[in-house]
Amino acid sequence: MNKHGGYYGAKQDVIDFSVNINPLGVSKKLEQTIVDGIKQIHKYPEIDGKSTIEYIANHYNLKNDELVLGNGAIDLIYLFARALKPKKVLVIQPTFNEYKRAFKLIGSKIYEYILNTDKFELDVKELINYMHELKPDVVVICNPNNPTGTYHDICKMNEILEAVKEINSILFVDESFIEFSNKESLIKYVSSYPLFILRSMTKFFAVPGLRLGFGVSNKNIIAKMNEYKEPWSVNYLSLISVPVLLENQEYINKTLDWYKAEKEYVYDNLKELEAIKVYKSSTNFHLCKVKESNAELLKDKLLKKGIYIRTCEDFSGLDNTFFRLALKKHEDNEKLICALKETARGEIDEHNTCDRWS
Amino acid sequence: MNKHGGYYGAKQDVIDFSVNINPLGVSKKLEQTIVDGIKQIHKYPEIDGKSTIEYIANHYNLKNDELVLGNGAIDLIYLFARALKPKKVLVIQPTFNEYKRAFKLIGSKIYEYILNTDKFELDVKELINYMHELKPDVVVICNPNNPTGTYHDICKMNEILEAVKEINSILFVDESFIEFSNKESLIKYVSSYPLFILRSMTKFFAVPGLRLGFGVSNKNIIAKMNEYKEPWSVNYLSLISVPVLLENQEYINKTLDWYKAEKEYVYDNLKELEAIKVYKSSTNFHLCKVKESNAELLKDKLLKKGIYIRTCEDFSGLDNTFFRLALKKHEDNEKLICALKETARGEIDEHNTCDRWS
Repeated sequence: MNKHGGYYGAKQDVIDFSVNINPLGVSKKLEQTIVDGIKQIHKYPEIDGKSTIEYIANHYNLKNDELVLGNGAIDLIYLFARALKPKKVLVIQPTFNEYKRAFKLIGSKIYEYILNTDKFELDVKELINYMHELKPDVVVICNPNNPTGTYHDICKMNEILEAVKEINSILFVDESFIEFSNKESLIKYVSSYPLFILRSMTKFFAVPGLRLGFGVSNKNIIAKMNEYKEPWSVNYLSLISVPVLLENQEYINKTLDWYKAEKEYVYDNLKELEAIKVYKSSTNFHLCKVKESNAELLKDKLLKKGIYIRTCEDFSGLDNTFFRLALKKHEDNEKLICALKETARGEIDEHNTCDRWS
Repeated sequence: MNKHGGYYGAKQDVIDFSVNINPLGVSKKLEQTIVDGIKQIHKYPEIDGKSTIEYIANHYNLKNDELVLGNGAIDLIYLFARALKPKKVLVIQPTFNEYKRAFKLIGSKIYEYILNTDKFELDVKELINYMHELKPDVVVICNPNNPTGTYHDICKMNEILEAVKEINSILFVDESFIEFSNKESLIKYVSSYPLFILRSMTKFFAVPGLRLGFGVSNKNIIAKMNEYKEPWSVNYLSLISVPVLLENQEYINKTLDWYKAEKEYVYDNLKELEAIKVYKSSTNFHLCKVKESNAELLKDKLLKKGIYIRTCEDFSGLDNTFFRLALKKHEDNEKLICALKETARGEIDEHNTCDRWS
């Protein structure tokens, strides 16, 4: 299996900045919904989650046959791969490493278009030229992207959509982190372009333990996926949670307020640290780069202070100088900033100015 | 998707005999475990359910690397197919129809060995001769079998195990209904034969809404399946339920007492009905056959009385005269028997003696 964040989540004495989950946690309403739902777990859930699909379709102004539910968003990456069986897949890197695994497992040949670590900016013209040359069956973009936090704007995405249409390809867009960003989703384009959009309930609504995601596409792609879908793949407690999550405007507003305040606080403070470069992010985590030395050493030092970070050496296009920091509650973010400052300062005091975290 | 039981489960006014779930429902202990667990769903579950695997391994005297967890047992049918990619699969029919779908989806050629509807008895010599001739990569047997209720004893299974070893095949045994039957499991043979055993927590412990199953095999087959397994495929609430389910001896005893009493009550009463043939069962449901007329008509008539049964025309080797009845609580079983008697008697009163449920 691939490396992922979240391994220190269970330890009470470690603040886990490796896992990109809304720290506001589970709302009282959701807790009560699940408690009530326990009375029904002796029954099979709907075999394909029909009622939940109808709810989501209505919420996002989609048709029922444009939606598929997943046992977590990740389930749908694998289902998409199995159902569509693309020969050539182009992945915009660096990005979440499950796309590569999912497509490799079904025998796809993976091509990577690696963005420059300077800003991870997408040169759309160059990408489209490459697409015309390569003619991939599927192009994968995560937007906003994990782990860089970069958001490719709607104009760029539109150009890519036109290009996939021209070359008879499908654009797979993972929007798992879009709710934080207040950015435009591509959902409205699913009926007019060859497009699959992956959405997760896990991150914004803080329910990774439940397993809940959905996919949006045209009815032909969804029908193809349903041919391969396993019955009862989404558990009952996840199915009944959807309306409670999507309708909880108070939770959504609270999250967006937290996000806005903490994003600014953390970014501004990270920017002041000379020893690291922090990248502008459009979502709830920041990619950073240790200017000298490496992130593994920093991870070890921070772990001694009860802070766990996600090093990023396993992402295509990144190396052992990169690490990712999720936004947490204010007091935790304060501790992070403080620990980072101390760590750098400590090294300076030890007269090791050249290699601040070595 | 295939046809399955359970479609009337959500309607309060219908007793659903199509779904083979323990009617004792969810224990108070399990309810409390899930309620307590809700506090942790903001964290990712263990990526591969390691702690739960360790628990099950210890419980069944297995090694950790002989186990894999599934999002329901059904998840593991599909995972096994994807990972092992058998070219030829021999399925002992009539049986659960998801095996066929799972193997077909990955391109296996399906061969069927169909048991005679007289008693669904397995002629092991004949089967083994066929296996030697066909040389299937995988042989699938459900034991006790759904929908026939038949259990093939350990001597027969041993002969089949020897045969799969000789022809370099793998025996896939679905033991999803074995806990009811007090019959011997093949789990003890996983290290000495090419064998995969599927187990479900759904039926005996009445948790279809949670999605929880596991597979047992030798470490090579399990490692192969882990290569293809999706991360976080089992939700947190399922993972923490396992010890509570397996340790609840009071629930297990109560279930076995209910099972013994109701099996006998229902079988004896079904046997008295002239219009149907009932098959001896080794688990919590009975396959029946309408002697004249068809099961669809019986289904419609019973539905008017608030009773839903599973017709079996979609199983290879069965036809529209077969139907399956799950064991329910005593009062529900009484209603079923009563409704069946009334239905037959009603038709006789209408002087339609030849076709009792037409």
